[in-house]
Amino acid sequence: MEEETGKQFGSDNDPLLVSVRSGAAVSMPGMMDTVLNLGLTDKAVEGLATISGNRRFALDAYRRLLNMFGDVVMGVPHDAFEEEFDRIKEQHGVTLDTDLNEEGLDQLIAAYKAVYRKHTGEEFPQDPYLQMQKAVEAVFKSWNIPRAIRYREINEITGLLGTAVNVQSMVFGNMGDDSGTGVAFTRDPSTGLNEFYGEFLVNAQGEDVVAGIRTPQNVTEMVHWRKDIYEQLLDVKRILENHYREMQDIEYTIERGNLYLLQTRTGKRTGFAAVKIAVEMVVEGRITRNEAMMRVPANDLNQLLLPTFDPSAAREVLTTGLPASPGACFGMLAFSADEAVDRTHEGEAVLLVRKETSPEDISGMHAAAGILTSTGGMTSHAAVVARGWGKCCVAGAGEITINEADRTITINGRTFGDRDTLSIDGSTGEVMAGKVATQDPQLSDEFDSLMEWADEHRKLGVRTNADTPADAARARSYGAEGIGLCRTEHMFFEGERITEMREMILAENQEDRITALDKLLPHQREDFKGIFTAMAGLPVTVRLLDPPLHEFLTHEKHLQAELAERLGLPVEKIEARVAQLHESNPMLGHRGCRLSITYPEILEMQVTAITEAAIECQQEGVEARPEIMIPLVGTAKELDLLRQRVERTIALTARNRGITDLVEIPVGTMIEIPRAALTADQVAEHADFFSFGTNDLTQMTFGYSRDDINSFLPHYLRQEILERDPFQSIDVSGVGQLVEMAVSKGRIIDENMKMGICGEHGGDPASISFCHDIGLNYVSCSPFRVPIARLAAARRRLNKGLNKNGTRRRRRVRRG
Amino acid sequence: MEEETGKQFGSDNDPLLVSVRSGAAVSMPGMMDTVLNLGLTDKAVEGLATISGNRRFALDAYRRLLNMFGDVVMGVPHDAFEEEFDRIKEQHGVTLDTDLNEEGLDQLIAAYKAVYRKHTGEEFPQDPYLQMQKAVEAVFKSWNIPRAIRYREINEITGLLGTAVNVQSMVFGNMGDDSGTGVAFTRDPSTGLNEFYGEFLVNAQGEDVVAGIRTPQNVTEMVHWRKDIYEQLLDVKRILENHYREMQDIEYTIERGNLYLLQTRTGKRTGFAAVKIAVEMVVEGRITRNEAMMRVPANDLNQLLLPTFDPSAAREVLTTGLPASPGACFGMLAFSADEAVDRTHEGEAVLLVRKETSPEDISGMHAAAGILTSTGGMTSHAAVVARGWGKCCVAGAGEITINEADRTITINGRTFGDRDTLSIDGSTGEVMAGKVATQDPQLSDEFDSLMEWADEHRKLGVRTNADTPADAARARSYGAEGIGLCRTEHMFFEGERITEMREMILAENQEDRITALDKLLPHQREDFKGIFTAMAGLPVTVRLLDPPLHEFLTHEKHLQAELAERLGLPVEKIEARVAQLHESNPMLGHRGCRLSITYPEILEMQVTAITEAAIECQQEGVEARPEIMIPLVGTAKELDLLRQRVERTIALTARNRGITDLVEIPVGTMIEIPRAALTADQVAEHADFFSFGTNDLTQMTFGYSRDDINSFLPHYLRQEILERDPFQSIDVSGVGQLVEMAVSKGRIIDENMKMGICGEHGGDPASISFCHDIGLNYVSCSPFRVPIARLAAARRRLNKGLNKNGTRRRRRVRRG
Repeated sequence: MEEETGKQFGSDNDPLLVSVRSGAAVSMPGMMDTVLNLGLTDKAVEGLATISGNRRFALDAYRRLLNMFGDVVMGVPHDAFEEEFDRIKEQHGVTLDTDLNEEGLDQLIAAYKAVYRKHTGEEFPQDPYLQMQKAVEAVFKSWNIPRAIRYREINEITGLLGTAVNVQSMVFGNMGDDSGTGVAFTRDPSTGLNEFYGEFLVNAQGEDVVAGIRTPQNVTEMVHWRKDIYEQLLDVKRILENHYREMQDIEYTIERGNLYLLQTRTGKRTGFAAVKIAVEMVVEGRITRNEAMMRVPANDLNQLLLPTFDPSAAREVLTTGLPASPGACFGMLAFSADEAVDRTHEGEAVLLVRKETSPEDISGMHAAAGILTSTGGMTSHAAVVARGWGKCCVAGAGEITINEADRTITINGRTFGDRDTLSIDGSTGEVMAGKVATQDPQLSDEFDSLMEWADEHRKLGVRTNADTPADAARARSYGAEGIGLCRTEHMFFEGERITEMREMILAENQEDRITALDKLLPHQREDFKGIFTAMAGLPVTVRLLDPPLHEFLTHEKHLQAELAERLGLPVEKIEARVAQLHESNPMLGHRGCRLSITYPEILEMQVTAITEAAIECQQEGVEARPEIMIPLVGTAKELDLLRQRVERTIALTARNRGITDLVEIPVGTMIEIPRAALTADQVAEHADFFSFGTNDLTQMTFGYSRDDINSFLPHYLRQEILERDPFQSIDVSGVGQLVEMAVSKGRIIDENMKMGICGEHGGDPASISFCHDIGLNYVSCSPFRVPIARLAAARRRLNKGLNKNGTRRRRRVRRG
Repeated sequence: MEEETGKQFGSDNDPLLVSVRSGAAVSMPGMMDTVLNLGLTDKAVEGLATISGNRRFALDAYRRLLNMFGDVVMGVPHDAFEEEFDRIKEQHGVTLDTDLNEEGLDQLIAAYKAVYRKHTGEEFPQDPYLQMQKAVEAVFKSWNIPRAIRYREINEITGLLGTAVNVQSMVFGNMGDDSGTGVAFTRDPSTGLNEFYGEFLVNAQGEDVVAGIRTPQNVTEMVHWRKDIYEQLLDVKRILENHYREMQDIEYTIERGNLYLLQTRTGKRTGFAAVKIAVEMVVEGRITRNEAMMRVPANDLNQLLLPTFDPSAAREVLTTGLPASPGACFGMLAFSADEAVDRTHEGEAVLLVRKETSPEDISGMHAAAGILTSTGGMTSHAAVVARGWGKCCVAGAGEITINEADRTITINGRTFGDRDTLSIDGSTGEVMAGKVATQDPQLSDEFDSLMEWADEHRKLGVRTNADTPADAARARSYGAEGIGLCRTEHMFFEGERITEMREMILAENQEDRITALDKLLPHQREDFKGIFTAMAGLPVTVRLLDPPLHEFLTHEKHLQAELAERLGLPVEKIEARVAQLHESNPMLGHRGCRLSITYPEILEMQVTAITEAAIECQQEGVEARPEIMIPLVGTAKELDLLRQRVERTIALTARNRGITDLVEIPVGTMIEIPRAALTADQVAEHADFFSFGTNDLTQMTFGYSRDDINSFLPHYLRQEILERDPFQSIDVSGVGQLVEMAVSKGRIIDENMKMGICGEHGGDPASISFCHDIGLNYVSCSPFRVPIARLAAARRRLNKGLNKNGTRRRRRVRRG
């Protein structure tokens, strides 16, 4: 290894030094990046000193090699070196490394060698080739460390055999004040603005920029140092973007006034920047629209759609919980659902703080600005409901102790009460004191363009899960093409209705139940009218009552007493009914269509309300398109019986209202019980559509209770038994196999049957890809994930289109 | 229709009367059987009176026709006729129908006509042909009533297009004291003894024998009435058995001294009789051994294996619950598990009476003579555990109120305390006052012969589910060829161990947990030694710990306080741990192999105990053949990791004991999670065997919690959404599909992989047939069902062999 200058690698007198760095196109967590100054030894450092005429420079390069090689290649703790550095700088009364003289550097080198010896059990290698060999091996090995593998999986970086290793001859930014080093992005990676963006340091080597000891200067200030070099850099930006047609992340060094480019690769960026850069590059004619879409990972849109904390605002972090539902919010503390509702109505912004939430808390959760729980995980009730609404939530912040009695919480010794404000960041899990300034999402023109292109390309429809006119309207503004899941149970919790609902549940016979249901009917009808109107012209899939009845009763003694008084019943009766309805495993209990089998009058009330709402809309010129969905079907016979009952009720309602031209109301079913998927051909005989409820299907296929999974899921992820939380991203080989089976079997009976997914997976890009591949008609997700789903659907189709042989690729599932 | 006598059907003067009866070979519930005296009208009755010279006889025949036709053909309530009959008999001061004179009969006929008119809205038809036509149609229609369909399905009566209808000319047993009628069996249908058995009545028609107004005479007493006819009947018995090679159930009538045979068909019989008759007929050379096996429904053996109440003993029935686990027992009332254990140890026979049972009650349930619960169904904890042990249990006796405080129960106003004795019949659900005499099962030589023949013919192995040496020994005596499921959790409830188990659960770190586990180890080792010894030479599949840990802690406050004192811990700590371990859906929670992933030290203790027990057996010359089974596997990775851990522990234990020739211990898995079945090919890579846990697989495939199913299952059975309780008999199209899929996928990886079933279905004949069909190697069931399984397996193989084309038939499953 010899340069034209006559320098030679391994030489003691005129050593050629090299850097070794990974040739991977993106930096991956855990991957080894760079080792500089390889080739220096006790002898060669003196040769370099002589040749360069700058012994201080040579020593500086050597101490950097000792540190970097020890740290990166040999795994010596970085702090062990830092401590020595700090000690010697203090001895010499200097703070900056550049101020340390030769004597200090000599001491430092001796100290570093001792550190190296102590931690590795061997001497720092004085053979340059051995140094290089070890550095190269370290790069190769780091390709297969678990974090890097996981990163490639998540980011779908496939088809690579491994990383390349680049060995470069060194240039030196630490040769004096006419030298320097820096990193830069050809555009702003935070905002996407087409402005050169970066930092540099005079008389330094690469790691100084990130180490944080010296504060680097903004690259634009280079004008004042060396205008010629700055202009060379602007030329480089232009040349690289023309060549790569992408925003570049570059590393450069200036050695004695000469600019060297060390590396260029595609730059990482925020969601905001990804959208802006991609769309502007289309405008600039550099890339096609399809390429633009492929450059914005769908999940990146999440950032654009939620309020965020102002990154420049000060924040005092009290503790960190789980980032359960993204967003940024603040509020005074509310300790119960009712309190949250009341205070919100009075115009306060409140955070609902609970140990964990339950369906009884729904109204308070909806009202509150955000939700903070001290137990429960990413899939707890609080987290799931909050994500569904796009509401900010931090869950499982275990350092928080809630003292309900004196209405305070304690975090690491500090106490906060109902007049104290906290801020929570649902993207990081941070809980902060006071009100941290936020910024609202502003959807850019570039975002609109991207969405428009996505809609042109996707095959998969995108609907939303929404239970209120407001949610429906918001989702529609985000591009939802209908409602795929309108849950009716939340409607029963609002205001007076919960009392009527409880009256129904406490009724001792069918007659009394019907009386109570009659009171609920007008509320349901108005709810449906509101939703149908918000979604005028688009389909609205209404799921009939799903949760077990005990979820509507209260378990707290004083609330039971209150209810007893209100309904004029002995409290014992309420207690007895609560006890009677208690279930060992409510997930697998008396709920879903099982309720419609045993209490057909509930189904009849709901279907009557849907039909009457549709009729009234029709009479008012609003195009209502309801679809009725029967949940938790496990046998074809259930659907057969209930469908007949639904159809009889629709016909009766139309007749009672004197209507003969009622729009047809399709009747379909959730496929969320494994048995329904296994016997989907039989079920399909009675269904107009299938909607895959992959939340419950995942629970039953794995035998995992979403509410209880936190006791073992973290172990399962850590030990890589599961690659991902199967409630976040669909488990293709198990749950997905059932879904695909049901699609095939259903389409044998009706090849055009409409099929969609309405579990939380409907908003997850990997799951959306799966849905596209197996030929579903639509996904349905929470309003805030609608744009993500639109883009993900388009990207999957494009990705398939980019297949080598140009044909549509079918995913292979291993079969028995 | 004309007889050689000149009588003519439809004639008013000399009417030929006919009976219409089903030609079905067996009587089925709901099927219409017989209508007599068809052809009589207001006119013909007088003709018959004239011709017979016996107007009383003619009127008697007419009133019978009105009653029977109204009841059986037209659905008029039988009681409506009975009331009139009683009224008129009272009017005339007589109690027997034979004492009613002509006048009374005339009145009765008028009254019956009025009843008929009132309930049918029409007059009794005076057209004889219309009478016959309606009777014939009624027979045909009754073939398809649901109860009859269900009966044919359960009894696997297939390949029939419908029933035949026999129209017979009448002979009359009610023509005077030289006439009579009766039914008889050619052998005793209760005991199987080869003795003519039956009843007869003088001057009567068929329905009188069963109506219970007049008490029929034993057929052997006919000798005193008409010896010649009795001898004719004995001839008939011989002729029929020679012809049909089966025990016959006959109906006969004697008209004026002449014997007529009305019907003969195969006689129904008890399990005792079925075995005795079948085997004796082989000895008599009438049938082959294979035919003998096909004549004993496997479930019939149940009767032979359990103690029964002496049928001749008097019984006072207080209430009736669900027949949860067959058997007959009595005992004084015990109100808690501990009480049941203590009093049993003191030599008392006790009945454990609980609202419902939980795993904490196990020791008491095991100790008690029987179990009686006031809630819970056929699949409640009490019922399932009791059936597993063959222990008598009546569940869900809702009329019982338990007053734990004053240690009494109240049944319909009567109160019983801890010194009162009740008897319960697990085959009928009856709860009776006092001690009703029982009789022990005595296995006959015929039973042994049948079992021997079954073993020669079956392909399917039969193992047992047993957790104790006593159960293992009993099962072995019943022919079990190994243990398919040895649950280890019951071992933790006995005596001191539960305290040690709780200590382990309450431990705050792994070290303390290991200390507590070390105390449990010797107990487990001894348990396993006992079981391996009882099963010497046969395989014993040990399932590692399965239930969630909270099942081992107590939820009762005073017991928590007691435990706290015993362990020297603050009670708050126990309360906190109980709260922490609480799960919303324990079925889908932290249990099974998930415990082994998070607490590997529990697995290590259990595997060490198994290995040490095997080593000690080996050293003592006992051939121990343990197999280790990992429960609740859902992913191949779980089994991969745990199998490695099991193998390391076995190797380490052998090394510690200085053993080099340890018998190989296979490691396999339960397939009880749908995902495990779906990915069985992946799971099979790490398994030496599969054991299908169809209890849990049914729970998850249907989404049914066995503990909560009673709120809707009765509706589901009534509305025929489900044909059978899927926990009793395997759901072939859903759960069975998964099992079959797993068998196919597993055998792709290892075509010889041993596969069995260890759910409760392993003792159900229909499920055993399914297991045979899909090629499982064995079924495992509770000890008391081992003989049933042996016979069922043989019957299925024979049944398949009897297939028309002689080839082995494959069951077809509908596929997508």
